[in-house]
Amino acid sequence: MSGWLAIAGLGPGSDALVTPEVTAALAEATDIVGYIPYVARVAPRPGLTLHASDNRVELDRAAHALALAAAGRRVVVVSSGDPGVFAMASAVFEAVEAGPEAWRDLDIRVLPGITAMLAAAARAGAPLGHDFCAINLSDNLKPWALVEKRLRLSVEADFAMAFYNPRSQARPEGFARALTLLQSLCADARPVIFARAVTTPEETIRVVPLPEARPEMADMRTMVIVGSSLTRIIPRAAAPIVYTPRSAPE
Amino acid sequence: MSGWLAIAGLGPGSDALVTPEVTAALAEATDIVGYIPYVARVAPRPGLTLHASDNRVELDRAAHALALAAAGRRVVVVSSGDPGVFAMASAVFEAVEAGPEAWRDLDIRVLPGITAMLAAAARAGAPLGHDFCAINLSDNLKPWALVEKRLRLSVEADFAMAFYNPRSQARPEGFARALTLLQSLCADARPVIFARAVTTPEETIRVVPLPEARPEMADMRTMVIVGSSLTRIIPRAAAPIVYTPRSAPE
Repeated sequence: MSGWLAIAGLGPGSDALVTPEVTAALAEATDIVGYIPYVARVAPRPGLTLHASDNRVELDRAAHALALAAAGRRVVVVSSGDPGVFAMASAVFEAVEAGPEAWRDLDIRVLPGITAMLAAAARAGAPLGHDFCAINLSDNLKPWALVEKRLRLSVEADFAMAFYNPRSQARPEGFARALTLLQSLCADARPVIFARAVTTPEETIRVVPLPEARPEMADMRTMVIVGSSLTRIIPRAAAPIVYTPRSAPE
Repeated sequence: MSGWLAIAGLGPGSDALVTPEVTAALAEATDIVGYIPYVARVAPRPGLTLHASDNRVELDRAAHALALAAAGRRVVVVSSGDPGVFAMASAVFEAVEAGPEAWRDLDIRVLPGITAMLAAAARAGAPLGHDFCAINLSDNLKPWALVEKRLRLSVEADFAMAFYNPRSQARPEGFARALTLLQSLCADARPVIFARAVTTPEETIRVVPLPEARPEMADMRTMVIVGSSLTRIIPRAAAPIVYTPRSAPE
């Protein structure tokens, strides 16, 4: 009996964005472990046990999954998006490092997925077509001062910026502070994309100039992308196209 | 006769990472447009015309694809990885903006894919589990001074860093300069991942401490990921796991 653990990305919502690699792992699994809404995306079948847990228990969930694999089960930890980007992969490796030595010998694989910023960018055009950064705006796991420092440096570097978790339920005021800071640092009207529930039936994409961006335009299901100083809008009858050119001038 | 244009990401190499959405678009297409090795990944079939072009002609290729779609063809522009990350989507939108007004009314969609940094990160562990940036190290399209500025600011922000196109054939010396700069800015032995030909039969993953990283460890098929100051290595009998913890200390 040889157990394994796959940490798999389900993509942003649509089944059309789940990779065949992830689909195959789900079909071979005996156990699915994850946050309730992500486990709900896996169809039940005989022989498959679903272990759905609440938010904010990532390390317990990771340890549970590792213990199951160590006991010979074939375990898939499901994440939304890509498991390596602000999701379960780091939590699993934190648990491995802190856990029994034997966990290091487990067969552990990370199966990449379409992370939210790629899906949101695709829906709006190509705002991440030049250098960019990705910042988790939640300050549950880091001091707010570090978020602000990174925003300042990212503006100075003229990166396009993708923000995950802009408005957590616990601390919604962070995003308001981030927007105010960006509006003061950037003297332009670069586009801001609010991409909510991307690739689901509830999807909405809204593009506004930075001076008009408001905190309430984002909720917990929203991905925010702020353009660089070079990001452009192509107006047209359909929704505008937002893209960042490949070149930066001398 | 209603043409359309899809700009599709084929992922880093393995067919197991091509999304069902992209597979469906390829099945409906009349024309495939792209760089020779990417077009070669699409199986020929009756009714499908393959238009393979050489590197460095992105704008011509984009205009050709747009003209085909405007003539009523169903066109897929294929990119490696994700089309929105240092790939064809921005080139197509540059061509749209510079082209005939009618091109703006075309049905144009971007179909996301697994970009190289996500696949490389997954193979090594989870080095992008905390805030990070993605930089195209090629200076074909921007001045080298801007690359250096972004490297300095990214180190100051303590981002993990994903480098695309570290060693172009035309200007291989850039990566040597980037490594020397990073080694002087970072006084630690943070891990550097050289991920070559990820998810293909030729895949190699090499992890070295930054002071031991050498330019010749990368070639044109290599994705380089440099950890943040907090990125960790879990040693074990199999290849080590490289991951960045979710938290940053106060």
